Amino acid sequence: MSTEEVQAYLTEHIPLSAGMGVEVIEVSAGRVTLGAPLRPANLNHQSTAFGGSVAALAILAGWTQVHLRLQDEGIEAQTVIQTSSVQYDAPIHGDFQATSDPIAERDWSRFTRGITKHGKGRVHVSVRVTAGGATAATFTGAYVALRTSDGGLSG
Amino acid sequence: MSTEEVQAYLTEHIPLSAGMGVEVIEVSAGRVTLGAPLRPANLNHQSTAFGGSVAALAILAGWTQVHLRLQDEGIEAQTVIQTSSVQYDAPIHGDFQATSDPIAERDWSRFTRGITKHGKGRVHVSVRVTAGGATAATFTGAYVALRTSDGGLSG
Repeated sequence: MSTEEVQAYLTEHIPLSAGMGVEVIEVSAGRVTLGAPLRPANLNHQSTAFGGSVAALAILAGWTQVHLRLQDEGIEAQTVIQTSSVQYDAPIHGDFQATSDPIAERDWSRFTRGITKHGKGRVHVSVRVTAGGATAATFTGAYVALRTSDGGLSG
Repeated sequence: MSTEEVQAYLTEHIPLSAGMGVEVIEVSAGRVTLGAPLRPANLNHQSTAFGGSVAALAILAGWTQVHLRLQDEGIEAQTVIQTSSVQYDAPIHGDFQATSDPIAERDWSRFTRGITKHGKGRVHVSVRVTAGGATAATFTGAYVALRTSDGGLSG
């Protein structure tokens, strides 16, 4: 999927991403970067980024990476978040970005093997949130994928 | 502050709360409950609640509780989130609510003593997210408050 296709998908299926002004910046094999403007949608009472917006952007970046890579590999599954943790390191005074770290091959293999063999897999994704080039928050999420087709194993 | 005043505060200062349709349901001494509709703002690709919306509502509920209680006690401080964790227990198929647990008195005392004596305190808040009366997610957040006045210690 191109950045435009991912943008259209998020806008259609996750309306809060449009409400937040989420922009798909990069979508490549191992990495997804999403951006969001500080103003007006993501402000808090101190005119810095609302922690809920930061968490939501990171959750979306991690989800998008897992979803796209499953799609690339032809694995039909629905991915949802199971746990999310954010450490807020510094207030965010401008537009911000969330970039997912590449997932280690061993973890990815275990994940996809779980889906194709047992119908279910779980994988952890780390995301770094930056503003003005500096890290402002770090995120870790566990995503669970459930197989939605028989993966060609039957019939 | 009444529920109407809190509603007006959130709408003005944290615009995403309006974008999400957040409604202030209960504001009392030890407890804050906020609600959000599933449709249309908080849907995900599976027509259940978007994990980012769930996290944002819980962060807001915890923040509101800390902010209001500090205000009640006449402690002038700015409160921000430092860490947030969400465990998603079940998909949410309808409107959902986030209710903060009362903060233990010992924890609250340590928190306010930190602010008044040292200018800074930290407290953990737990929030339960429910939908249709059942727990759908659990949240824990650490909030940091920085004193914004001298607390009457000088002059």
